[in-house]
Amino acid sequence: MKKIGVLFSGCGVFDGVEIQEAVITLLVLDRNGAGAVCMAPDIDQYHVVNHLNEQVSSETRNVLVESARITRGEMKNLSFVSSASLDGLIIPGGFGVAKNLSNFAFKGKNADVHPEVVRLVREMASEKKPIGAICISPAILTRILEENHPEVTIGNDLGTIDAIEEMGGVHQICAVDQIHRDAANNLFTTPAYMLGPGIKDVAAGIEKLVAAVVAAA
Amino acid sequence: MKKIGVLFSGCGVFDGVEIQEAVITLLVLDRNGAGAVCMAPDIDQYHVVNHLNEQVSSETRNVLVESARITRGEMKNLSFVSSASLDGLIIPGGFGVAKNLSNFAFKGKNADVHPEVVRLVREMASEKKPIGAICISPAILTRILEENHPEVTIGNDLGTIDAIEEMGGVHQICAVDQIHRDAANNLFTTPAYMLGPGIKDVAAGIEKLVAAVVAAA
Repeated sequence: MKKIGVLFSGCGVFDGVEIQEAVITLLVLDRNGAGAVCMAPDIDQYHVVNHLNEQVSSETRNVLVESARITRGEMKNLSFVSSASLDGLIIPGGFGVAKNLSNFAFKGKNADVHPEVVRLVREMASEKKPIGAICISPAILTRILEENHPEVTIGNDLGTIDAIEEMGGVHQICAVDQIHRDAANNLFTTPAYMLGPGIKDVAAGIEKLVAAVVAAA
Repeated sequence: MKKIGVLFSGCGVFDGVEIQEAVITLLVLDRNGAGAVCMAPDIDQYHVVNHLNEQVSSETRNVLVESARITRGEMKNLSFVSSASLDGLIIPGGFGVAKNLSNFAFKGKNADVHPEVVRLVREMASEKKPIGAICISPAILTRILEENHPEVTIGNDLGTIDAIEEMGGVHQICAVDQIHRDAANNLFTTPAYMLGPGIKDVAAGIEKLVAAVVAAA
């Protein structure tokens, strides 16, 4: 059975992983006969957002602990996962990617990415193992692999497209039910909720992305 | 477009809704051309469980606020939703059903169910609108509708089966990829993670349940 890493960034679109994108990724991996290796960094979230009113709360929550809500407890500490145990890697979206795994939400093209995320992505890329990035995740993929000039999509958001190109990436417009493949770097990207509009549309793109990553793994 | 209510009980299997079951319900509703009316009670969770180590924490979280994480903020207060605005109702599983929507986890067959949950379920039942219950949810459905002697499945857990029959229900063993239909009461149930073993198996049963509820709505 192929083992595909899934990198979580919390639990909830405004301060963590986009839950629907993450669950659909797990569902399609299972349907494609692949095993999911779920992981997240053991760090505090940048902040906690009340998802009902979108206000920041005074709570503190841990990315690894909250991510485990989605997977019924199965969540590895990212620090203990290396590319040697993975045949591919998928990064779902959500603001957690831009606030917890990196500070792209605040620093854009000058973003810092968490060192353990940088390490794992570089390991995978150096071994030419496939990487799938969903929604906003292609932005941090581009930041990490900027010397490889990744060709990615995040849909059609002009500000994010500018940042990707300034970081050394090449952006391709892509519909929500499609994926973009960078054959040279073995990368697969899909816009998901960067475009929406709804869960079935997002799922159509994620299904293609997951199938492509598993096939390339 | 048919409007199907989805009743949430938090965000995470051990103290709220089973997230995978909830997301798959939303996905299949969208694929069946139905609109989801997502709702939850505005109450504190019974407790907060760290999903990584399954220990109870000292935090306080609100069921309505946490449920909104799964739906990108779209979550109505259950108190303001009546059967008049719904063509059907689905209740995903998770310990939130047995700890927040009711105290079935502690009192079993003598469980008290939250009055607003009782109200909405009785409204739907009195109008013979279809109700789908996933995983552990058939237990509270039975408790609310005990005079109607609901015929349901929660898989094959003997203790829960006993409680259901003592509450006046009739239990039917059912595989995870199947549903049980109570034609007289217009109820549809599937075991989901009461049986498992994995997300694709659970999804197979939920797909049938959601399609049946939409068709009957």
